[in-house]
Amino acid sequence: MTELWLVGIGTGNPDHVTLEGRAALRDAAAVLIPRKGAGKEDLAHLREAILRAADSNARVIPFDMPVRDESLPYAERVARWHDAIALRWQAALEQAPDGPVALLVWGDPGLYDSTLRIAARLPGAPRVRVVPGITALQALTAAHAIPFNTVNGAVSVTTGRRLREGGWPEGAETAVVMLDGQCSFRALEPAGLRIWWGGFLGMPEQVLESGPLAEAGPRIVETRAAARARHGWIMDTYLLRRA
Amino acid sequence: MTELWLVGIGTGNPDHVTLEGRAALRDAAAVLIPRKGAGKEDLAHLREAILRAADSNARVIPFDMPVRDESLPYAERVARWHDAIALRWQAALEQAPDGPVALLVWGDPGLYDSTLRIAARLPGAPRVRVVPGITALQALTAAHAIPFNTVNGAVSVTTGRRLREGGWPEGAETAVVMLDGQCSFRALEPAGLRIWWGGFLGMPEQVLESGPLAEAGPRIVETRAAARARHGWIMDTYLLRRA
Repeated sequence: MTELWLVGIGTGNPDHVTLEGRAALRDAAAVLIPRKGAGKEDLAHLREAILRAADSNARVIPFDMPVRDESLPYAERVARWHDAIALRWQAALEQAPDGPVALLVWGDPGLYDSTLRIAARLPGAPRVRVVPGITALQALTAAHAIPFNTVNGAVSVTTGRRLREGGWPEGAETAVVMLDGQCSFRALEPAGLRIWWGGFLGMPEQVLESGPLAEAGPRIVETRAAARARHGWIMDTYLLRRA
Repeated sequence: MTELWLVGIGTGNPDHVTLEGRAALRDAAAVLIPRKGAGKEDLAHLREAILRAADSNARVIPFDMPVRDESLPYAERVARWHDAIALRWQAALEQAPDGPVALLVWGDPGLYDSTLRIAARLPGAPRVRVVPGITALQALTAAHAIPFNTVNGAVSVTTGRRLREGGWPEGAETAVVMLDGQCSFRALEPAGLRIWWGGFLGMPEQVLESGPLAEAGPRIVETRAAARARHGWIMDTYLLRRA
């Protein structure tokens, strides 16, 4: 392998792929693809469609994702999991032909994604190229046609875990919540907050909800559960703003 | 006009355009293009190249950007300026053929951009479609191959003005600074902070600097001034993280 290319492919709409991302997938000698994950069937089909649309002749090298040890404390669990994924990548890379190897990354490789941290664990420190991609937060604000920020406003980008453990981010006017599998907005006092929520953003299955948190919150919990039951998985995100 | 399409086109690399963005530019009946702005020559050429690459046959309708009244207080100055731009759009739209009208937006129409707020001022409230695009903060983290966030970390996205007036964002571990024409990181106590900076991100002229703020800060001020003198304009952004 000469280089590792981390290619952001957006949130599930094949048209989110950039011209740079398409060219990278076309020019890569090999592509590493995980065999497992949430919504594995749907997402595997999407990855294939994106590679086909890019006229990619890259050799597809599948690898199995390791399982996280849920008995460990959070930080250690994540670190060990990244170590284990790096070992799987390393084994898969031994089968790769000469030339750049690409990984398809949902969203953007820089934003709430682990691939850069996993790549840093590979022996020999291969050169890493990052191709930015459309993130869930952009797909969310685009779908609702709302601005991310108010005029000269600040935005706190945070996680469901932090919202549950620390409440509303100190001093924030707007908060965008990533990696939340638990509707953690329920941990907040809803008065004065408005929410814009989206699931399956950018995909034909896209569902949107918005309104004052007190009233839209319970509706989102219900919509999310129904959509998840229907598809067997869900990816969602939301933006909260003080009224 | 049937619809207004706000099309994010990335930060100056024509390959940042997504397949969705390219199709929107191809299918639009008209495109509104401002005649003025920072780096007007360079950016005008880029816009033309992007439209050509999209095989766009849209009618190009230029409009003049109004001038901001710098004597007004900030919030009012911005509101009046948006009112004035909306009037220019309205006049330009009177020349548009039937069909969707597109605007090319640097970065993403949702992120530190005014087009959604200006569109909301148009009479008749046309339907607005937002096509997300690669933002400067993604071009920055991609160019440096760094993650936006730490594991389970929060990020404060803020402006140069807020940094100058309010200092380091309360409780933040990482801050990304947008709309800063004044190297506002100089207002911070540099101890314990690291900076990753980029100018002309995604363009052939791209310049990058990084390091501990105490040492990299003065180098960035110098690099930025030299690059700006050479090109006659500059767009830059940066990420700061507590060590």
